[in-house]
Amino acid sequence: IVLCQQTITCRAAIAWKTNSPLAIEEVQVDPPKAGEVRIKLKSTGICGSDDHVLKGLVPMHFPLIPGHEGAGIVESIGTGVSSVKPGDKVLILVIPQCRECNSCLHLKGNFCEKQDVLPASGLMMDGTSRFTCKGKRIYHSFRTSTFSEYTVVPEFSVAKIDDAAPMDKICLISCEVPTGYWAAVHSAKVTPGSICVVFGLGGIGSAVVMGCKASGASRIIGVDINEEKFPRARALGVTDCLNPRNLKKPVQQVVKEMTVVGVDFAFEAIGLVDTMLAAWDSCNQSYGVCLIIGWAPPNTKLCLEAETIISGRTMKGVCLGDYKTRDCIPQLVTCYLQNKINIDPLATHQLPFDQIHKAFELYHAGKVIRCILLF
Amino acid sequence: IVLCQQTITCRAAIAWKTNSPLAIEEVQVDPPKAGEVRIKLKSTGICGSDDHVLKGLVPMHFPLIPGHEGAGIVESIGTGVSSVKPGDKVLILVIPQCRECNSCLHLKGNFCEKQDVLPASGLMMDGTSRFTCKGKRIYHSFRTSTFSEYTVVPEFSVAKIDDAAPMDKICLISCEVPTGYWAAVHSAKVTPGSICVVFGLGGIGSAVVMGCKASGASRIIGVDINEEKFPRARALGVTDCLNPRNLKKPVQQVVKEMTVVGVDFAFEAIGLVDTMLAAWDSCNQSYGVCLIIGWAPPNTKLCLEAETIISGRTMKGVCLGDYKTRDCIPQLVTCYLQNKINIDPLATHQLPFDQIHKAFELYHAGKVIRCILLF
Repeated sequence: IVLCQQTITCRAAIAWKTNSPLAIEEVQVDPPKAGEVRIKLKSTGICGSDDHVLKGLVPMHFPLIPGHEGAGIVESIGTGVSSVKPGDKVLILVIPQCRECNSCLHLKGNFCEKQDVLPASGLMMDGTSRFTCKGKRIYHSFRTSTFSEYTVVPEFSVAKIDDAAPMDKICLISCEVPTGYWAAVHSAKVTPGSICVVFGLGGIGSAVVMGCKASGASRIIGVDINEEKFPRARALGVTDCLNPRNLKKPVQQVVKEMTVVGVDFAFEAIGLVDTMLAAWDSCNQSYGVCLIIGWAPPNTKLCLEAETIISGRTMKGVCLGDYKTRDCIPQLVTCYLQNKINIDPLATHQLPFDQIHKAFELYHAGKVIRCILLF
Repeated sequence: IVLCQQTITCRAAIAWKTNSPLAIEEVQVDPPKAGEVRIKLKSTGICGSDDHVLKGLVPMHFPLIPGHEGAGIVESIGTGVSSVKPGDKVLILVIPQCRECNSCLHLKGNFCEKQDVLPASGLMMDGTSRFTCKGKRIYHSFRTSTFSEYTVVPEFSVAKIDDAAPMDKICLISCEVPTGYWAAVHSAKVTPGSICVVFGLGGIGSAVVMGCKASGASRIIGVDINEEKFPRARALGVTDCLNPRNLKKPVQQVVKEMTVVGVDFAFEAIGLVDTMLAAWDSCNQSYGVCLIIGWAPPNTKLCLEAETIISGRTMKGVCLGDYKTRDCIPQLVTCYLQNKINIDPLATHQLPFDQIHKAFELYHAGKVIRCILLF
């Protein structure tokens, strides 16, 4: 085991403040402290949550290095790290699994108490940062910060994966694929012949659509305000596309009318209370299940009509497909290597890391499902 | 089969308008039409929903005959009725099972589309009433109207039960026991060692407590503003009693502090949005499950903090323990007869039907779990 004590100087994308273009800068990445792992990134995806962070929709400390969906190779480890060693292929986990907290020890918990999302400190467990740029401390985001050639993360945020994993796209299995595909397959347990509606046809929503399709849903209604996404959504399995801006009635009313009785499963993959409400109201009043995958901004309220709740619907929040991440994400990688799931349709675009601005442009225009940045 | 075509004159409790005392009147009960069953009541419970109706908290047509938790003997049947015959012991079902609608045909649906709760017409399926008093048409409530010596209900709202069932308390299995006890056991599937909180320690909440206890919950926190209910709640299994009016902090915050991580299972058995929100916020953020059993008034909103939904909690509305009523309620009666569940602690009081005012007084004072009226 090599305990590297060198600071690494490399390139990273820094958000100096909210709503400003990312700056690719030279940064110093400190060596990993005890219980930490330094990783050389190979690929990272651009996910909606990163965009939420950059727009200031979620409370974070700036300046920061964004990014949370990442695959890389362990460069060095701090003292006490035993689950990975330098040279290992790993995925970086936005929701860790410490295996010690109440949530990790609970049969069904997956929202590890050592996560740094709700709320986000932007710092490692010891309250300090491993990044410096121009002499300034740079905050981490989610303790992942994958928009950097090197990053430091806690050991419990790292999953060792199969050596055969293709590093140019396997990063999708660190977030998009469990968050979307397995939310449909594992959390909702979409049933054959069921009717589904998916709000948001971006990266996560597209993965949800694939999960619904793989589960045998007979009808998948896709909802988005960007119609450019519709052809590729249809290719993934969407049977009906709706643009709420072109409807004369609220979208939930249209979904109810189209399906007569409402849907079996509704998925919100945007992070807005209006679409969360639309998803809930699209559900069959008796057996409908509404999964909230999108991350809503703070100080927003999802207001449900209370009188009709007793008729039976279910609403469930879900992250990472309800999987305990370190235990399960390596298994999902193995699933992929065994051709049990095809993630290739989600990896629509790849660009070198230094074209991150172009990648965000494509993301904002809705022209990509996932644009993966390669290092 | 006797097709009785006689109108029966008998006593019933009529609510002439909202918020007025029930009047015991002589009413004419028409013979059952096609697909209907006329039942001689033996016992009926006073449930919170009846009180909601009388207070005008839920939209109903007046004058009406309230009551929905009833046990009786079939007196006569209309043409086409095949599942019961005169002399059969039956329970009356507030949520029917028509076995034809989308919800009944769905594996998980139990909110039969032929229910008359949301919304309530107050009339039989043909749009007419079977009750007359002083020449005036009297509305049904929920198509059950059990506060009457005789009632007429649709065949799909009747469950034939075992001949050995004791008619002086088996009425509890038509509503309170599945709504409360089996919401914990069957819907929530409360796990051994889990921590539960129950908002409302009336009839339904008490049944929930028994279900949590029977499932092996290690801690059951009971919440009510009437401390008179606490000793009997403790006797049923509540380990900690909280009166929100005597707390310096919001009750959900106290529950969170008491349990450190929040509860595994929260039950709302009142029907107020404030307590629904408190139940939701008492849950563990990752794996907590919040069951809404209480029936909230129309035009009220349950407003959830949206940002934190993704961390994994589940909210589910539930009525009659998610059971398909005609299929399952007779089996629950059999469970009782086989001593697999003891409903006796719930049947705290019995009074003759003509003491219905006294029964409501006891209900309002919180002095009873269930007061059963005997005919």
